[in-house]
Amino acid sequence: MVLTYRLNAPPCSAVRLEGRFWKPRLETNRTKTLPHLLQMLRSGGRLALQSGAPASSIDYKMYWETEIARYIEAASDCLACRYDAGLDALLDGVITLTVSVQQPDGYLNAYITHIKPDKRWKHLFTCHELYNAGALMEAAAAHFRATGKRTLLEPVCRYADYIDSVFGAEDGKLKGYCGHPGVEMGLVSLYQATGNPRYLSLARYFVEQRGQLPNWFDTEETGSTALYWVDSLRNFYRNHNRDFHEFNQSHLPARRLREAVGHAVRAVYFYAGMADIALEYDDEGLMDACIALWEDICGKRMYVTGGVGDEYAIEGFGPAYHLPNGSAYAETCAAAGLVFFGDRMLRLTGEGRYADVIERVLYNLLPASVSLDGTAFFYQNPQQSDGSATRQEIFTCACCPPNAARLLASLGSYFYAYNDEAVYVNQYASSEARLHAGGTGVTVEQETNYPWDGAINLTVTPDRPAEFTLCLRLPAWCQHYGVALNGEELKEGIIPINGYIRLKRQWRQGDALSLRLEMPVTRARAHPRVSDNIGKVALARGPVVYCLEETDNIHELERICIPEDAVLNVEHREDLLGGICVITGEGRKLRLDGWNGALYRAEPADWEPYYFTAVPYAVWGNRGSGAMRIWMGSM
Amino acid sequence: MVLTYRLNAPPCSAVRLEGRFWKPRLETNRTKTLPHLLQMLRSGGRLALQSGAPASSIDYKMYWETEIARYIEAASDCLACRYDAGLDALLDGVITLTVSVQQPDGYLNAYITHIKPDKRWKHLFTCHELYNAGALMEAAAAHFRATGKRTLLEPVCRYADYIDSVFGAEDGKLKGYCGHPGVEMGLVSLYQATGNPRYLSLARYFVEQRGQLPNWFDTEETGSTALYWVDSLRNFYRNHNRDFHEFNQSHLPARRLREAVGHAVRAVYFYAGMADIALEYDDEGLMDACIALWEDICGKRMYVTGGVGDEYAIEGFGPAYHLPNGSAYAETCAAAGLVFFGDRMLRLTGEGRYADVIERVLYNLLPASVSLDGTAFFYQNPQQSDGSATRQEIFTCACCPPNAARLLASLGSYFYAYNDEAVYVNQYASSEARLHAGGTGVTVEQETNYPWDGAINLTVTPDRPAEFTLCLRLPAWCQHYGVALNGEELKEGIIPINGYIRLKRQWRQGDALSLRLEMPVTRARAHPRVSDNIGKVALARGPVVYCLEETDNIHELERICIPEDAVLNVEHREDLLGGICVITGEGRKLRLDGWNGALYRAEPADWEPYYFTAVPYAVWGNRGSGAMRIWMGSM
Repeated sequence: MVLTYRLNAPPCSAVRLEGRFWKPRLETNRTKTLPHLLQMLRSGGRLALQSGAPASSIDYKMYWETEIARYIEAASDCLACRYDAGLDALLDGVITLTVSVQQPDGYLNAYITHIKPDKRWKHLFTCHELYNAGALMEAAAAHFRATGKRTLLEPVCRYADYIDSVFGAEDGKLKGYCGHPGVEMGLVSLYQATGNPRYLSLARYFVEQRGQLPNWFDTEETGSTALYWVDSLRNFYRNHNRDFHEFNQSHLPARRLREAVGHAVRAVYFYAGMADIALEYDDEGLMDACIALWEDICGKRMYVTGGVGDEYAIEGFGPAYHLPNGSAYAETCAAAGLVFFGDRMLRLTGEGRYADVIERVLYNLLPASVSLDGTAFFYQNPQQSDGSATRQEIFTCACCPPNAARLLASLGSYFYAYNDEAVYVNQYASSEARLHAGGTGVTVEQETNYPWDGAINLTVTPDRPAEFTLCLRLPAWCQHYGVALNGEELKEGIIPINGYIRLKRQWRQGDALSLRLEMPVTRARAHPRVSDNIGKVALARGPVVYCLEETDNIHELERICIPEDAVLNVEHREDLLGGICVITGEGRKLRLDGWNGALYRAEPADWEPYYFTAVPYAVWGNRGSGAMRIWMGSM
Repeated sequence: MVLTYRLNAPPCSAVRLEGRFWKPRLETNRTKTLPHLLQMLRSGGRLALQSGAPASSIDYKMYWETEIARYIEAASDCLACRYDAGLDALLDGVITLTVSVQQPDGYLNAYITHIKPDKRWKHLFTCHELYNAGALMEAAAAHFRATGKRTLLEPVCRYADYIDSVFGAEDGKLKGYCGHPGVEMGLVSLYQATGNPRYLSLARYFVEQRGQLPNWFDTEETGSTALYWVDSLRNFYRNHNRDFHEFNQSHLPARRLREAVGHAVRAVYFYAGMADIALEYDDEGLMDACIALWEDICGKRMYVTGGVGDEYAIEGFGPAYHLPNGSAYAETCAAAGLVFFGDRMLRLTGEGRYADVIERVLYNLLPASVSLDGTAFFYQNPQQSDGSATRQEIFTCACCPPNAARLLASLGSYFYAYNDEAVYVNQYASSEARLHAGGTGVTVEQETNYPWDGAINLTVTPDRPAEFTLCLRLPAWCQHYGVALNGEELKEGIIPINGYIRLKRQWRQGDALSLRLEMPVTRARAHPRVSDNIGKVALARGPVVYCLEETDNIHELERICIPEDAVLNVEHREDLLGGICVITGEGRKLRLDGWNGALYRAEPADWEPYYFTAVPYAVWGNRGSGAMRIWMGSM
């Protein structure tokens, strides 16, 4: 297959997101979450070693550098979208501290340098050195893009150069790779920011080397110096008769991977890195692996909210179709990683199915992972709750909050894509984007109340008239739709190809497109192999998955049933949870009376009518703690 | 309330169980399970210390003495029912070894004496010393009853006397009690065998002292010498915001207990001990607590098969109505303990509801816990299985197999009860029992194919004509029934009172009663607060709960639905699993095709007709490993 659809993502600064759904969230991200995260970095001790605190004074965690880097990246992307001298100066300070631990040879890792100086590159399985390095690379690229400053880029490049001198296929170099992928995407970012092909080539090494024999992790030091979680993981894999190396995708070489296994964040980060290499090198073998992995995840291992990671014990993938609602892990970082992976696959293939999944994450799991006020977070995202799950201000391992923040800060990048022949509208929201196609600059504007309404008005404004294909994604959830161009309904050429309605013509300033996606309430059903969801439905409307919350209903939500013939109503509630559509209807509720102390009886259950209210999963848990349920009995 | 119904249980030697259900099982227990268990005692090292093996040569477990004792008790009860010189001699040998570790002061515990000599009575929370002592007492009583020999009784009485000198309310004695109840029942057995009131009084002390302040376990040594499981238990209770002392029922004094909590075996053993004391001392306060605990268990915390212990992490009771099928613990010992508790409550109150629950265990969980060939066992009894659960030949902690064996060996005791005014027929099976009532000996015979058929013919033969009440239990599952006396249908006096049809008259030799219990297939429903079973049914017929097995159906049993209107057929299959009734019917099955790789879709699920076969849970897992499910979708 020839990679004809290779697409570019616009920088986030080239896309302005507006509208009732995204604008307040991005504003909250910038004005509430970022300061909250900086406070966490400071008071939580994450900058302590860099500030000169003695190593013995703090239980410094090996993965904290990534949290600093994600903060820098999120703040940089905010800065790119909207300059703020105060934030710029704050960032300067954080960056100065971050790079202050760099060693003369370029090595840059606070934990190893100050806490375990003799362990440099000794415990790749657990020590997260290259994972942290990857986060620093992504942060450096974002900071450079946003500010033009090299204060982070230059030290990080020195670090990358040093890493390149240590790791690689050449004689005398270590043949290792990190227990936690991430450096692959980081190196590709650094390559894109600097144009230095060594970084791309090193990323390819890390993609290709993983899983080669002898397995690197079998050659590392073990025993008492092997840190963190390894024994219980080994037990899990032994008990399940699986290869322990699956945990971090080192059980097979990348191009032989076909099944998503192991720790979900490690998995999707690595797959995204594979897709980066497939994209940059036109590597068909890697692309085939990526497509198979994507289909395996999205066809067998993804919660309806876009969450992945169904096996709590390994924070990862269990057997196919194992999607228990009550014990989901569904880490925020894994959903973000699925977006990164999907974004690369979309740009590699031009197929809308990748954007469909990104949309699922964007309108469900991602917003749900952050409180509406921007200062509390889910790490594991419940897919059902008895009321005990609540967002936390922070975590000891706080990868998720700044990861969500950087994804939100750069969100516009995912809404559009382009190459010389085409402009892709991947996601719908009121927005304005500056792109390039047909040899000229093109501005695309959307006006819509999406996701609450399926009417989308687009204006296409090339700098000069130009021929290119405008590609409008037809979401997989949409059964009926229409398109009008300059007021005239299009009858032909609107059958989607690979998920996009592709309109090839000479575009002129102010061409007006109107896309109407019919958006009835639907009942989602899960594949029959998802045993938890047999006989159950999840309410959805457009891309938005709904849930029932205790606060609108009763505590024991499982007693509520939404029969197939229940009429479902939609009501826009401007006053509620930032402005949402709620779904209501008359279902029924199991009666508790009439049991006379019995636990079992032969008589059928008694039901009574019950008028229920469902709200978007995206905003659940913002009105105090309480039970929540997505999948409801339907019969 | 006055304890008017205080009843006696016949010794198991006074009841001969016949018929297709019980006779082969008791025969297998005697001829297959007992030798298998003796082999386990020997080759598993349980008699090693007693045989002179050095303590360093074996990882001797602190609870192994109980396993020896249960074997002795099971073998003794078999001997009582049917003398066998070889078994008698074998028992002599085991007993000689068992008592060989007795110390000059009477202390009798192989583990502490040989492995941790400085820890005598130091770790009551974990060391199981008194639990083991209780098992020895029950064994000693059974062995003495069966053989008249004092070879075990005498050393165990010396041990009990020594325990009585160490523990008690008197000044200078330890105010402790065991982390694992059991000694209470043991002391009452010993009292019943010897008539020595000190044992009864010591049992009362152990019942009353538990849960008094300061809590004994807070005063024990802790830290590195505290053995076994304590830290993870403490964490569990901390995480669930519960009092850690609940684990072994030391959170409150016995007479204030109202809710079943903690480790299920510890709980029901203790409640049985409480009931013993209530029975022996006419103690109304303890009886009230026992009734509340019984109702709490059977009304909120019992699986439909009679299993208890729904919270895997503590092998015990979780919140009310928490009865997950997939993660049931439902330990065999806990079900046995529920029978012990129910037996005492039945003899205390004369109410049939206790026998109803005993019947539930006897026809479901108990037989399922042992393979049909008698040599493989469940410890946790799955209430649903994906095929991974299989019976084991033995366990490191093997309390369950010999506990099931002793219950089976003594089973006849539970089928009848009596006092001077009445004879109680508690359970139905072809059998002959020798009892006493109305001032004379009474023989009761049953002829029936129960539980496969509800027709039961009884012959009542008093040694001389005598007036007493014959009480026939009307099972709670039975809606329609009839009784005929000497061929004449009874129209009056057959309304059950407290669960028994009570026929008071002058009984003469050969009086013939015919009881007909209609036994249609029913669908059991669980209380709506049992969230796992909402919308589901369990098939049952009479006391027998059914399940679907993979071998008769498909692997993914959850795809099968048994609609409310499905006609259910019963077929006796003499050839199958020792002769059983199977239930068949036309339900439906979720189709797997038509999904085209999708994980979610809006279209309703597709069903196809499916003819299913259900077998008694009692015999599941006897045809190779495979999935099993009790609760089926019903709509």
